[in-house]
Amino acid sequence: MPTATGHTAAIRASKVIGTKVCDASGDHVGKIEDIILDKQSNAIMFAVVGFGGVLGVGEKYHPLPWAALDYVDDKKAYVVPYGEDQLKSAPSDKIDELTKNDGAAFRDRVYDHYKAERYWI
Amino acid sequence: MPTATGHTAAIRASKVIGTKVCDASGDHVGKIEDIILDKQSNAIMFAVVGFGGVLGVGEKYHPLPWAALDYVDDKKAYVVPYGEDQLKSAPSDKIDELTKNDGAAFRDRVYDHYKAERYWI
Repeated sequence: MPTATGHTAAIRASKVIGTKVCDASGDHVGKIEDIILDKQSNAIMFAVVGFGGVLGVGEKYHPLPWAALDYVDDKKAYVVPYGEDQLKSAPSDKIDELTKNDGAAFRDRVYDHYKAERYWI
Repeated sequence: MPTATGHTAAIRASKVIGTKVCDASGDHVGKIEDIILDKQSNAIMFAVVGFGGVLGVGEKYHPLPWAALDYVDDKKAYVVPYGEDQLKSAPSDKIDELTKNDGAAFRDRVYDHYKAERYWI
């Protein structure tokens, strides 16, 4: 688990929201709709990405591990290390559903889906 | 340091931003302007509160430890356990200054000011 001792990289939530997201091929797939925060633990639970019509999932929103977002200046977008198929098949739901039961269920499912390193114990 | 094992409490960043903040006496002192996130460590660094004209600090923004925000339904506001004097004398600056040097300087100063428990090591 990473800690924040010397290595911090401050960014404003309001600037993250609305930023474009590209898949591993660099193709634009959607944008950050929101960020889910954990009031109990001081942790960022996950980013919420809307793929819009591009991947054909309509109104559904997808959680993405925060650490997977890598900002690339040239693209003015976050590039994630996942292919279109992996993104398409990721857990998704209406945005209010993602935070139900305190968000832990979706958090766990999405970290499993992407085999992402867990920030919690 | 709290961990997110079983105790999560998911909240959308976009809903936190704009929420009113009250001091320990329950008096309205300002609102959440933004939340500063740490891209390196998955941690919420601090909330940014604007006191507007109420405390007479004009354009300055104040960091507040995330854990200090306690939402009170009756007030539709976050109530912080600090008095007006403590809030007035807290570190403050323009919002872009708060994130300079990756935010660590302001984060450390504000946790010291409020004697808040550090979430990092």
